Amino acid sequence: MNQATSLPVVGFIGLGIMGSAMAQRIAAAGYPLHVHTRSAEKAQPFVAAGAHWQASPGALARACDIVITMVGTPVDVAALYFGADGLLAQARPGTILIDMTTSSPRLAERIAAAAEAAGLQAIDAPVSGGDIGARDGRLSIMVGAAESALEQVAPVLQCLGKQIVRQGGPGTGQHTKLCNQIVIASTMVAVCEGLAYARRAGLDMSTVLASIGGGAAGGFLLNNLGPKIVNGDRSAGFFIEHIVKDMGIAGSEANELGAELPGLALAYRLYRELAESGYGREGTQALSRYYED
Amino acid sequence: MNQATSLPVVGFIGLGIMGSAMAQRIAAAGYPLHVHTRSAEKAQPFVAAGAHWQASPGALARACDIVITMVGTPVDVAALYFGADGLLAQARPGTILIDMTTSSPRLAERIAAAAEAAGLQAIDAPVSGGDIGARDGRLSIMVGAAESALEQVAPVLQCLGKQIVRQGGPGTGQHTKLCNQIVIASTMVAVCEGLAYARRAGLDMSTVLASIGGGAAGGFLLNNLGPKIVNGDRSAGFFIEHIVKDMGIAGSEANELGAELPGLALAYRLYRELAESGYGREGTQALSRYYED
Repeated sequence: MNQATSLPVVGFIGLGIMGSAMAQRIAAAGYPLHVHTRSAEKAQPFVAAGAHWQASPGALARACDIVITMVGTPVDVAALYFGADGLLAQARPGTILIDMTTSSPRLAERIAAAAEAAGLQAIDAPVSGGDIGARDGRLSIMVGAAESALEQVAPVLQCLGKQIVRQGGPGTGQHTKLCNQIVIASTMVAVCEGLAYARRAGLDMSTVLASIGGGAAGGFLLNNLGPKIVNGDRSAGFFIEHIVKDMGIAGSEANELGAELPGLALAYRLYRELAESGYGREGTQALSRYYED
Repeated sequence: MNQATSLPVVGFIGLGIMGSAMAQRIAAAGYPLHVHTRSAEKAQPFVAAGAHWQASPGALARACDIVITMVGTPVDVAALYFGADGLLAQARPGTILIDMTTSSPRLAERIAAAAEAAGLQAIDAPVSGGDIGARDGRLSIMVGAAESALEQVAPVLQCLGKQIVRQGGPGTGQHTKLCNQIVIASTMVAVCEGLAYARRAGLDMSTVLASIGGGAAGGFLLNNLGPKIVNGDRSAGFFIEHIVKDMGIAGSEANELGAELPGLALAYRLYRELAESGYGREGTQALSRYYED
């Protein structure tokens, strides 16, 4: 009667906007699900639907075959993996740990090395596609891992996205996600400036979008967030405080790699100003505020 | 036998990459075509195919019902329209003049006012979609015009693009095109910086494009010019010297409108550096040079 018994037990840590949508899809696919979060109340809907609550990362790790983490910052990731009651110390040999947080490539490399030393495997697999992509299982998943490790977890990742691309060994998933965030950051500047000009010139911004959205200026952000800017909808699909965090990681990585990225530096400055003005929980399209007065 | 006799006579001035592809489509649709260019040899293929050569803008204007201009800069546009042997002085009453050059919105307003005083109608109708869009008749056309004027020339414009959007009265087509160029300028910075980071991080750039092109970072420029950057193809669909010209117009218009656009200022600086280094005839994707060393 229960076909789920043959499926690996999946642990999920971090049930924010993205994490909860992703955990939901894994549960819906029939995987036995264990959950842990810093704010236990966020786990309540999952526990009510049959998931097992685990009181600590270590307790969760001991109970699972695959552990997925989707938390806030590299500091949070490091604490989860390296603590005494953390994933690396507590997971059973053979467990596969997948960090889907957007985090530091260097940290991903460190985790993978420590995992190998402990008889585990670690994968970095950050995602793109936002809350809608997470709900619909249409995320793009950027994977840094040994091929064999990815093969073992592919069925679980396929619950989350159809676009799963292995970029290379540990860390390369994170590097690729930083590329993604670098493109997004300056593209948001592009979108907001185009619309700011339209507004100042007295154009009808929706009609402008209708003209330029199908041409060379067109893209996901212009076509999806442009209308929100026009309508004054600043609600978050992706928080400003998160893009600020990601740009901080990207900027310091770029620095280490000797890459001078003035567009990233500019976007980082503008977004930080907004975050410092108290708009960190608005969506990235609220960068349009910078151009209003 | 000749259904073309009922069609209006169309004049076309400016046979560069874009102009020649556009004039070709108008001739192919059966319109009697008169041409004029500063470099007469560019008109040769058209004359060989049956178009009428006209030795001056004024001579062309006197022979045509509709005149389309697609030249380099606002200075060129002003000379064509306002000269003694220019379009405004020489066109027969009732002629409709369409400037499809990316030019100054203020100049478009001046031309439209002068046209009205002379019993003519003037339309600003800059385009987006590049050389490929021009050849395939899939340009996006941004129109500033009285509705009645647009209606009269719509069949001709439909040879050039399916996306024809009237933005408002004279000047608004140009304003909309500047919005388009503002978005493109910073998006090119975004694309080049994302790929520059990928290269520095040792990633396979094609695999990175495969991951990020379908997500929130995706768009026309990443997906069409990204692969050219990866392959080192700097050939021009759109010249750097033209985006520099357009950003110059956009920057001074933004200034007049009181809009501070730091992303545009940055892109303008980077592209101008490249143009000054002799790369003005490379394609806009050659901005990637800035990030190499």
